[in-house]
Amino acid sequence: MSTEAPAPAFDKQDLLPAIAQDADSGDVLMLAYVSQEALDRTQETGLAHYYSRSREELWKKGDTSGHVQHVDDIRVDCDGDSILYLVNQEGGACHTGFESCFYRSLDGERVAERVFDPDDVYE
Amino acid sequence: MSTEAPAPAFDKQDLLPAIAQDADSGDVLMLAYVSQEALDRTQETGLAHYYSRSREELWKKGDTSGHVQHVDDIRVDCDGDSILYLVNQEGGACHTGFESCFYRSLDGERVAERVFDPDDVYE
Repeated sequence: MSTEAPAPAFDKQDLLPAIAQDADSGDVLMLAYVSQEALDRTQETGLAHYYSRSREELWKKGDTSGHVQHVDDIRVDCDGDSILYLVNQEGGACHTGFESCFYRSLDGERVAERVFDPDDVYE
Repeated sequence: MSTEAPAPAFDKQDLLPAIAQDADSGDVLMLAYVSQEALDRTQETGLAHYYSRSREELWKKGDTSGHVQHVDDIRVDCDGDSILYLVNQEGGACHTGFESCFYRSLDGERVAERVFDPDDVYE
């Protein structure tokens, strides 16, 4: 079996889900989507780019907040239909002030503390 | 700001992306999709269930291979449109024999070793 990575298999919307994981702590920070352009810009700049489905535009993570993600490595899954960014996160990944967007259990229990005050970061 | 978890915001296909992460090592194992039924069955049984978009059916991970995922906790992200399963993985998560489906960099470099032989597991 070849170990070459498959070409990313973008979906009908030309997007792929991308997981951002902290390269040091291993914490899963967020899930967003990438276009081919977002993936290219991430590789060119070393900073995580995504595609915002709501704003319908390329999105450099941290553009407003300064909380950029320095990308150590990009992994692709076995069938090429999802991506894993291994990142060094400045500030916090979540716009609500948490390191990770996954700061709550499904039953509503908060499992983390805020790392920044969103009122200080977003206008 | 409330810390109650949002109700899962299923998409137009009534699915949500779900990340499986090893509860001990922190390794991201796979990304798949869940329906409400898959989420309910996961909570009822403590074993990870997903919805297969290709087979269009509920799917208990490990049903063929025996490589089930014991779910320690389920996290939901800030806007409720993705899910994180924290799991104890039996065997390996990837049908190609690796612990994680993300065993390759985007440039094709293999970053892990096989943990089982798929020929021994799948007919």
